[in-house]
Amino acid sequence: MIVVLRLNHRKERDKRISTHIGLVSRAFFADKIIYSGEHDDVLINSVNKVSKAWGGEFLAEYSKDYKKIIKEYKLKGFKIVHLTMYGLLLNDKISQIKSEKNILIVVGGEKVPFDVYQAADYNVSVTSQPHSEVAALAIILDRLIEGNELIHEIKGVKKRIKPNALGKSFYE
Amino acid sequence: MIVVLRLNHRKERDKRISTHIGLVSRAFFADKIIYSGEHDDVLINSVNKVSKAWGGEFLAEYSKDYKKIIKEYKLKGFKIVHLTMYGLLLNDKISQIKSEKNILIVVGGEKVPFDVYQAADYNVSVTSQPHSEVAALAIILDRLIEGNELIHEIKGVKKRIKPNALGKSFYE
Repeated sequence: MIVVLRLNHRKERDKRISTHIGLVSRAFFADKIIYSGEHDDVLINSVNKVSKAWGGEFLAEYSKDYKKIIKEYKLKGFKIVHLTMYGLLLNDKISQIKSEKNILIVVGGEKVPFDVYQAADYNVSVTSQPHSEVAALAIILDRLIEGNELIHEIKGVKKRIKPNALGKSFYE
Repeated sequence: MIVVLRLNHRKERDKRISTHIGLVSRAFFADKIIYSGEHDDVLINSVNKVSKAWGGEFLAEYSKDYKKIIKEYKLKGFKIVHLTMYGLLLNDKISQIKSEKNILIVVGGEKVPFDVYQAADYNVSVTSQPHSEVAALAIILDRLIEGNELIHEIKGVKKRIKPNALGKSFYE
C-alpha cells in the first residue's frame, strides 16, 4: 500500500501544485493522499471528483497534524519515504524501497521541518538538483510500478481514453 | 538534442507550474525550453538563474509564436512529440521516439489548438489518465535518459548536493 502525505499546503499559493500532486498519486497507483497544512475543501473535492469520474479507489483526505499521521503510519508498519533534494539518490535506494510492503511517501512544501527528515526511514532525492515535487513524486511512483502505467490496471476504472495517434476519443 | 516548448503560458495562473516545467526540463537533461503564451521575464529569469547557480548549459527563452517555432524545428529535422492525455501510450512509442536524433517536446496548457496535434509526429500520453504536465514531461525525459538522472552528468554542473541520509550538505 502506498500513501502520499503532502505537507504544508497553502490554499492560495499551492492550489495547482497540490492538485497535480493528488492527480499524480492517483494516476501512478498510490492508494491515498493526505493533505496537511491549510484546510482546503476545494482541493480535496476536486481530487476526489476526478477519482469519481475516472474510476479507481483513490482517496484524498485532510489532516491538520502531519506528525500524528507519520506516527500513526509508523505504528501500522509503514516505512516513511521523504522526498527531498538533499536526500540519497533514489536510484541507490529504490530496490530497498521496493522491498517494503507499505510506504508513506512524504512530499514537502517550502521549509520542511527537521523532524520529518528524522522520522523518515529514507530521505531520497530525484536527481539532487532543484526541480519539482510533482516530478519527483511521479518518478518514484513510476519506479515502484516499474514504468507500467497502463490505465486498465487501475482497479475500477470507469472512464478510459482510447489512445489516439491524432484527435480525442474515449472507450464506450 | 531535446528542446521543450511550453504552450500558452499565463503569467499569473501558470507561474509555478511553468517554472516547474522549466526546472524539470533542465534536471532531466533537455537542452532548452521555449515558453510561448504571455511574455514573462520573471519566469525566464528565474529558470535561467537556477541554471546559472547550479550549472549546465540549459537555456530558457521566450517566443510569441509557437507555430513558427514548430515549423522552424521541423525544418531543422526535429521530430515533434506532443504530450497529450489523448495520445498513444508513451510505452508503446518510446523506443521509436528514442531512435530520433532531435526532438521538440510540446507541453500544452489548457485547450491546445488542433494544429498542434496535426503538426506532431507523435501525440503521446503518459497513463491516459488526467494528472500533470509536469509529471508527464518528467516521465518522458526520464525514459529518454533511461532513468539515469545523475547530477554529475549535467555538463558544467557547479553546485552539487552531497546525497545525505539525514540533513543537508553540498560538495565543495
